[in-house]
Amino acid sequence: MASVSSSARPHPLQRLNDEEILKAKDILTKSHDSGEKLLFRFTYLEEPKRQDMVKYLAAEHQDDKTATLPTLPRMVKFVYDVIKGPGEHTLADAVVDIDAGKVVHTQTHPRESQAGYAPFEFAQFQETCINSDMFKEALKEFELPPNFAITIDPWPYGGQDPDEDIPRYMQGLVFARDASTDNPDANHYGYPLPLIPVMDFNKKELVRIDRLATGGQGDPWNPRPPLLRSPRSSSPTPSRPSTAPPSPSPTTPPWCPGKSGASASASPRARAPSCTTSATTAAPSSTACPSPRCACPYGDPRPPWHRKQAFDFGDGGAGRSANNLGLGCDCLGAIRYFDVWDTDPEGLPTLSKNVVCLHEQDAGVGWKHTNFRTGRAVVTRLRELVVQFIITLANYEYIFAYKLDNAGNITLETRATGIVSVVAIDEGKTSAYGNVVSPGVLAQNHQHIFAARLDPAIDSYDAGETAVVLEESHSMPAIDPLTNPYGNGYEIRRTPLEKSAFADAEPRLNRVVRFENRAHKNAVSGKNVGYKLTPSATQLMLAHPDSTQAKRAPFAQHHLWVTGHRDGELWAAGEFTNQSRGEVGGVKAMVERGIGEGKLSTPVAWVVWGLTHNPRVEDWPVMPVEIHQVHIRPADFFTSNPALDVPSTKNETSVLVPSSPSPCCEAKEQKETTASQQENPVSHMQGSGPDVKPKDIGSGSKDGKDKKRFTTLLSGVFGKKE
Amino acid sequence: MASVSSSARPHPLQRLNDEEILKAKDILTKSHDSGEKLLFRFTYLEEPKRQDMVKYLAAEHQDDKTATLPTLPRMVKFVYDVIKGPGEHTLADAVVDIDAGKVVHTQTHPRESQAGYAPFEFAQFQETCINSDMFKEALKEFELPPNFAITIDPWPYGGQDPDEDIPRYMQGLVFARDASTDNPDANHYGYPLPLIPVMDFNKKELVRIDRLATGGQGDPWNPRPPLLRSPRSSSPTPSRPSTAPPSPSPTTPPWCPGKSGASASASPRARAPSCTTSATTAAPSSTACPSPRCACPYGDPRPPWHRKQAFDFGDGGAGRSANNLGLGCDCLGAIRYFDVWDTDPEGLPTLSKNVVCLHEQDAGVGWKHTNFRTGRAVVTRLRELVVQFIITLANYEYIFAYKLDNAGNITLETRATGIVSVVAIDEGKTSAYGNVVSPGVLAQNHQHIFAARLDPAIDSYDAGETAVVLEESHSMPAIDPLTNPYGNGYEIRRTPLEKSAFADAEPRLNRVVRFENRAHKNAVSGKNVGYKLTPSATQLMLAHPDSTQAKRAPFAQHHLWVTGHRDGELWAAGEFTNQSRGEVGGVKAMVERGIGEGKLSTPVAWVVWGLTHNPRVEDWPVMPVEIHQVHIRPADFFTSNPALDVPSTKNETSVLVPSSPSPCCEAKEQKETTASQQENPVSHMQGSGPDVKPKDIGSGSKDGKDKKRFTTLLSGVFGKKE
Repeated sequence: MASVSSSARPHPLQRLNDEEILKAKDILTKSHDSGEKLLFRFTYLEEPKRQDMVKYLAAEHQDDKTATLPTLPRMVKFVYDVIKGPGEHTLADAVVDIDAGKVVHTQTHPRESQAGYAPFEFAQFQETCINSDMFKEALKEFELPPNFAITIDPWPYGGQDPDEDIPRYMQGLVFARDASTDNPDANHYGYPLPLIPVMDFNKKELVRIDRLATGGQGDPWNPRPPLLRSPRSSSPTPSRPSTAPPSPSPTTPPWCPGKSGASASASPRARAPSCTTSATTAAPSSTACPSPRCACPYGDPRPPWHRKQAFDFGDGGAGRSANNLGLGCDCLGAIRYFDVWDTDPEGLPTLSKNVVCLHEQDAGVGWKHTNFRTGRAVVTRLRELVVQFIITLANYEYIFAYKLDNAGNITLETRATGIVSVVAIDEGKTSAYGNVVSPGVLAQNHQHIFAARLDPAIDSYDAGETAVVLEESHSMPAIDPLTNPYGNGYEIRRTPLEKSAFADAEPRLNRVVRFENRAHKNAVSGKNVGYKLTPSATQLMLAHPDSTQAKRAPFAQHHLWVTGHRDGELWAAGEFTNQSRGEVGGVKAMVERGIGEGKLSTPVAWVVWGLTHNPRVEDWPVMPVEIHQVHIRPADFFTSNPALDVPSTKNETSVLVPSSPSPCCEAKEQKETTASQQENPVSHMQGSGPDVKPKDIGSGSKDGKDKKRFTTLLSGVFGKKE
Repeated sequence: MASVSSSARPHPLQRLNDEEILKAKDILTKSHDSGEKLLFRFTYLEEPKRQDMVKYLAAEHQDDKTATLPTLPRMVKFVYDVIKGPGEHTLADAVVDIDAGKVVHTQTHPRESQAGYAPFEFAQFQETCINSDMFKEALKEFELPPNFAITIDPWPYGGQDPDEDIPRYMQGLVFARDASTDNPDANHYGYPLPLIPVMDFNKKELVRIDRLATGGQGDPWNPRPPLLRSPRSSSPTPSRPSTAPPSPSPTTPPWCPGKSGASASASPRARAPSCTTSATTAAPSSTACPSPRCACPYGDPRPPWHRKQAFDFGDGGAGRSANNLGLGCDCLGAIRYFDVWDTDPEGLPTLSKNVVCLHEQDAGVGWKHTNFRTGRAVVTRLRELVVQFIITLANYEYIFAYKLDNAGNITLETRATGIVSVVAIDEGKTSAYGNVVSPGVLAQNHQHIFAARLDPAIDSYDAGETAVVLEESHSMPAIDPLTNPYGNGYEIRRTPLEKSAFADAEPRLNRVVRFENRAHKNAVSGKNVGYKLTPSATQLMLAHPDSTQAKRAPFAQHHLWVTGHRDGELWAAGEFTNQSRGEVGGVKAMVERGIGEGKLSTPVAWVVWGLTHNPRVEDWPVMPVEIHQVHIRPADFFTSNPALDVPSTKNETSVLVPSSPSPCCEAKEQKETTASQQENPVSHMQGSGPDVKPKDIGSGSKDGKDKKRFTTLLSGVFGKKE
């Protein structure tokens, strides 16, 4: 490693550093009239053109250590506003070649193109609302207890009405927070107010305030004067006895030769991190790990909630919302962290620490066989290299992990957690549009639909060599004396995609997507070397096809899109989703374009999966992770099990548990309860929780008996003869 | 725990011990004429009738510690042959009440009912073949090298032809093993011979020897004289440098109050282990964890491979094939092991050690939220209690794990591993019926279709209270000014199953199966308390509906079966699958019966999922795990997130990795290679591997460059600024 890290020139995929950003920003500023003010919104590493990057990787992977690597330009892409005067904003983007010291590309965008929101706008929005007379008047409709403060969660103005023609807007969900306790982290989501202020960002003023319905089943939709709601005290949640923290994964440096590898770069938006896999995984199989996008439409048909549709990454920004991952909390074991340089509105570099973590972990038995004649067993462990980042979008959290294991598998894991988005409902009522998760609090039904971009290169980067094939397993049509005499036969059918196309998951046919090299055969099977992806058969967009919600995200209507590669074409729903009326430059357009073109030579795959989230009471006040995994596995890529040489090393630190552990447990419980209660930071999560005894909330159980049930039961069944 | 374990009387679900088996065996033997010889095949704990067990659990879960528990009879079920004379076998079963000292139930079965094979029969089969002149003659067709020995893998005679009327048969797959090395574990599967001997078990003699086709694409099916194949030397696989063994899960005793719990019992067949969940998971929500069954039909239509259909549990026996799980290999961390007493053919108790292991493990972030205003984050870990057992069926392994986590989820995990079933193919040819995984070795396409029985009791055991509801999310039919003005609305539709029925997974509608208590409402949402199961949309039986393979396993034709509870009704495909012509007493019959009956009062659910396994070269010589999970989650069962009180404890043992670890890696590699090579037991797995350089097999890579690629790449991207 030392060799290259000490070399003067950074790797072409190396994240931008502060000097580079500063240089580029000065170059861009100089290129504009002094009269023009620049408002910087997003800053990316502009990756080299594919054809150049391919040359670099080829040279880099040569045996010949002395081979010289091509010099690729370091380039920065800025998305920014050009401000000629008050309210006169023009959205633009530019690419700056730092080495050449010049702007190599500029583009201005039409008025309807809106960049995602920058953090400073959240603060501006809240301030504008709080100070607005219109908003003060609206609040008078509520007899709020004196000790409650107002908090407003910013939301994108998710798709204007067909007849609306508007500048840059933002809307917000309003909550009351119990300010009696001096805890700024008290969960305000427990007390939603039926108001949505809408702000014009260019005029820096409120346009209007939408009143919200608070009725239940069968009630009319029109908003009615809200009832006074008595505040609920946030009784702190006692923590269960602390158990020993989970032990870390192996503590050898995670990137010794012979194990999986990944390279991470982070951009302020959805591409953090992209990666290149190698070593015992996919040789140079993939030049970009799937990079997620997400559209989240809400299913409550009562206006104005049709506008509650967020493109979490396009409107908010994933890289920018990435958490600082604390040691021993978000990632365990031997960890490498990666920082990212972003920019402030002035274009000055700002550092985000530890936004990507890399570590290894055990993943259970990797392969095993016992010879039943000799009783001899061989068992090895599955071992994952994990590249993880976590983003916060107001109330919600997403955890993304790329897992590369020693069997050559690539897994993209998504975990949804955080706080569900809630609105007010009259106490005692229920709704068909969501679930009451706390008295007066309705968690609305919604979807999260993700897209990941996959830029495959199977054992070669050469154009024309990568093929995409849909493979299915079919019953044979009939019992036939010649082809299927007893009816047990089944056949594998292959459909190569010669042109751009979309497709859906079909588990009943065991449909898999194979990325193959049509020129390289597997030495053993004689088939094309390849990797296979199993598309997830998850629910797609539920909004009506003619709705704005659906038109803004055609990508969410199929599980797979295959398009021809174009440099810089990275956004499933188009680059600018904020306030979009439709998908501009998204996968649908790419496929339509491709159909007119010739045969696919450099295919790019876009994998789509979703989570229809009809909230459970268990999702309140903070939801346990909903986990989804997309699997990409070698399929005749290697000449044998790539984990065959994983040593069957016994784990010497495992221990037998004594047969009667109860006493120590009780002791432990006594000893730790107080401590963990004090240290426990979850109490504030409870917020204005349900009116149930703290003990119930604490244990999350329906009554107090569970723990006793538990011990009794176990003693009964485990107690004897161990 | 001490309390009950010290109590005289075992828990009604406690596994049988040796004294109990011995007592019961004597009672049964006395009940038979002295002239009758008994051949013991399977021995189970006969669980109490549901209505009695329910009383026991209710009393056990009472607060009142002094409550007296009902005394339930300890009963043993034997499945055995009654032998009146040579070849005169009658299959019977009997239930013995140990306390009463008498046989309380007996039944004899018709000739066509065949019990699964017992281990002694495997040996008998191999011996009979080897000593048979017919077999010796057949072997003369092959010019085997002198240093090769014959090994025969027993296989059930999977479904006779429609016109066949036969006694107890067994067939076998024949392999040649390189006996030059003195390693009895040398992988014989690398050298299959195109022969299948068929044995009559009552006559103890071979009936015939089937010759097998060895052709490829387009070749005729008739067997041709086999060519002489040159043996391949099993060059040992060098092991990659050993990395520190994965660290264990938390080492606190895994069953302290406030964590998940499970009770395990093991029977010699498919029900090992059943379990009852409690504590922060499903209160008394489920009296039986899913207990798996499996049907594995092969898709090669060339006779006699239509008979290659194994019911791995019914024909073989899961509990009996359960591995002894070594400390620190199959399970890591703080482990409790459970032994099982089985019987030999004489009915004498035999001990299987450590066949079930129980431990806890970390499962990543459990829930997290960051307050973007204050930057304050709260993150907790998901923690799983794992009950695991592993079975070996000749060449194949299954790993089953029940996972109960601190968010109240129940997960049934299946991992398929071991060695794929292979047959001979002429070298250089390929086949539509499988994949060539090694020269001359064809791994045939096949399916594994599993069924798990779920006996739900949601917050009550009372008959009539548990409801099964199919819940789906649907788009609203139209954009309608009154109900769906903007088209974003969607609705949840519920279909209660009032009678026995089957259903399929439908992910496009987000179909979930809810087990609810129609009499108990959630205090917060007002909905029925419940748990939800998401059926896996996996491929079902591919064999033609009119085929014997399909008729033997109707259970494999739908993803869900719901039937009325009957004591002892535990087998999805019926109790006796061996040589079955059709499914007798399986789920199809149960549903048909139920339709004639009234409303479902005590529903039992049978969940079906499958794996269509079209082998990859990477699955040779031993396959990396194929993992599948079935998820059961609380849905308005608790009044809030049951993991809310999990302390956000920092893991103090996590460490930062220095920025240039390469030197230590190299060092490590040098130091350990030799050691791990010696200790490494995987070399014999390679068997007659593909004709590729050991290095390639070792790394499983296509060339030698991967490791360099890997390091270069990482140094490039990670090298700077960390």
